[in-house]
Amino acid sequence: MLSKSMEALGRRRSVIREIFEYGNRRRAEIGADQVFDFSLGNPSVPPPSDVTEALLALLSDREPTALHGYTSAQGAPAVRGAIAEYIEKTFHFPARADLIYMTVGAAAALTISLRALLADGADEEVIVLTPFFPEYRVFIEAAGGKCITAACREPDFQIDFASLDAAITEKTKAIIINSPNNPTGAVLKRETLERLAERLRRAEAEYGHPIYLISDEPYRELVYGDVEVPYLPKLYDDTLVSYSFSKSLSLPGERIGYIFVSPHAADADSVYAAILGAGRALGFVCAPSLFQHLLPACLGKTSDIAVYRKNRDLLLSALTECGFTCVPPDGAFYLFMKSPEPDAAHFAEVARRHELLLVPSDDFGCPGYVRISYCVATETIERSLPAFRALAKEYGL
Amino acid sequence: MLSKSMEALGRRRSVIREIFEYGNRRRAEIGADQVFDFSLGNPSVPPPSDVTEALLALLSDREPTALHGYTSAQGAPAVRGAIAEYIEKTFHFPARADLIYMTVGAAAALTISLRALLADGADEEVIVLTPFFPEYRVFIEAAGGKCITAACREPDFQIDFASLDAAITEKTKAIIINSPNNPTGAVLKRETLERLAERLRRAEAEYGHPIYLISDEPYRELVYGDVEVPYLPKLYDDTLVSYSFSKSLSLPGERIGYIFVSPHAADADSVYAAILGAGRALGFVCAPSLFQHLLPACLGKTSDIAVYRKNRDLLLSALTECGFTCVPPDGAFYLFMKSPEPDAAHFAEVARRHELLLVPSDDFGCPGYVRISYCVATETIERSLPAFRALAKEYGL
Repeated sequence: MLSKSMEALGRRRSVIREIFEYGNRRRAEIGADQVFDFSLGNPSVPPPSDVTEALLALLSDREPTALHGYTSAQGAPAVRGAIAEYIEKTFHFPARADLIYMTVGAAAALTISLRALLADGADEEVIVLTPFFPEYRVFIEAAGGKCITAACREPDFQIDFASLDAAITEKTKAIIINSPNNPTGAVLKRETLERLAERLRRAEAEYGHPIYLISDEPYRELVYGDVEVPYLPKLYDDTLVSYSFSKSLSLPGERIGYIFVSPHAADADSVYAAILGAGRALGFVCAPSLFQHLLPACLGKTSDIAVYRKNRDLLLSALTECGFTCVPPDGAFYLFMKSPEPDAAHFAEVARRHELLLVPSDDFGCPGYVRISYCVATETIERSLPAFRALAKEYGL
Repeated sequence: MLSKSMEALGRRRSVIREIFEYGNRRRAEIGADQVFDFSLGNPSVPPPSDVTEALLALLSDREPTALHGYTSAQGAPAVRGAIAEYIEKTFHFPARADLIYMTVGAAAALTISLRALLADGADEEVIVLTPFFPEYRVFIEAAGGKCITAACREPDFQIDFASLDAAITEKTKAIIINSPNNPTGAVLKRETLERLAERLRRAEAEYGHPIYLISDEPYRELVYGDVEVPYLPKLYDDTLVSYSFSKSLSLPGERIGYIFVSPHAADADSVYAAILGAGRALGFVCAPSLFQHLLPACLGKTSDIAVYRKNRDLLLSALTECGFTCVPPDGAFYLFMKSPEPDAAHFAEVARRHELLLVPSDDFGCPGYVRISYCVATETIERSLPAFRALAKEYGL
């Protein structure tokens, strides 16, 4: 007998990945330009030119055994130093290189943080806010925790504090926040986050132990217009920032990110030690070295997010015009659209017949919507509009 | 309370890593050329020119969003296809791309394989052969298994079958083989492996369940002279190959390797599904994409291993001449040397006073030796010889 849970997970696949693989097959069948694949958060905008330039410079200037060699498990000191400096300068928050741990992307940042925080063999809970990235549940359960949901309220997808109140218990060990949000594109407002911090502090006092806030923020820089994304460590002491360069630098396949443990967090040094241990136990020897060494030249740079903004505006206005109801996204590159029938999975199937690949929201813990990833070529969106119109018509919108 | 086991693991660090970090500090203190660091298996020979050329070609020719984008979780199909073809051509063994899973290096290949194979919540055992890479124990325990040791016999470090007999029980789920071996440099002979396969088949028949052989082979190509490294899937059906390009291409920091499940393995497709699930649960979204795409141009290429051979010959003859007793290594880039006092950790401390950084063998499960990584500049070895001579003299050799 193998691990049945792992086999089931491997066979089930994530719904998102499954649609993506379907898209690959379908593209081979009828041609890439005939499939409107809005399934995956795979950035369509190339990395900023700084990335390729810095990679070429590293490959020609650096000694190759140093460039491609092991770094310290927590990451190259110069890289962690540069990130600490960047955090200080950008957020006016005291960062320390020795509380930064370079990771193989945001997923690793989460699995490592959770494995570090959750006490061995204890019956502890981690709260996620619906709708949420479905892998959170996988990661929490793999680390031995229980995934507890609290709701964000429609239509603005700020936190529903009554729901949060019901979710917090003595067993709550951590909460994962993801703003700008996948799948809604919503950004949690400062007042929401202050109230959240206040609520968590109250729970900490009541239960007599820290409740860690894991701020999963791969979309931090992807906001449109005058939208603030407050820096969580400034609002709440027991914060771990989980950051990824996947979206900001359009490098999702390269798997590079970091964990930053707030120096104000309870037992910060022990948390950091447990992170080192968890990284080791899970098999992460160090984050990919070339892409670590790339970072100092690219901190604060982003891909041309004007493209995503244009896509957002185009899609939002066109789909609204079709008669669909959408959550206007302030950030990330996802549009959360109400399914015109209660069964979003069935709606996604109907959409597929129009070659529109949308992700039903059921796995995000918030049924009745589809997620539309608009990190695609603007031209793809333009060409997809007749299909969306036909879909709307089929539903009598 | 955090995860105490992870915190302990993070604080303890691996002995190897700790010596490496000491070396970094010591180099800063007294100058890099004054420290003779034989601690880490960080290749000193640069990657073959094919690597840099192929990286530059990819960066200039490939569309960057494709080059740096997510691949399928199991790896880019073209890359897996090229590896399958390479296995067929090189080992005359039928490989299938859909049984190859690209990993973030060999450590990930092991943690994922173990998590996939070990049944949930069961009391299962994994055998390792002493001396063994100490992280095996960490990985086995993290996957919920129990690490059981069987011995290799001195002085040739082939398997001691009486010891193996005693280690195999009904609970045995897998055995990890590492040949060429870290830390001894020994290569398991064909007759040893045939006898091992025979013994495992007998245990499978007796206990009525598969016993998987995990062949961890990052050093496969690093052999000196006319030494055969048999391909395990040809000798034993229930084999998973865990491969890494860290040593053969001198890319240890880039974290790129793969798992190959033998098509003859029991439940091969289920094992592969469980591997997909385990990769997902542990937070490996895909192996780093640039280094995946690099592989088709570099399969079968290696760094200039003549350097390691020269280092081996130099060190082996010089240390033997000093009066030390060494295991003559056939492969990898480690020399296993008997400690002239029973306490190898103390001997390593004494060596440190001569600025010689050696790894005591206690954590390898075989006390009384030190591991000397000779993947350093030949000149470092030459300059270190007076220190070794002084050390020998201190012990009256």
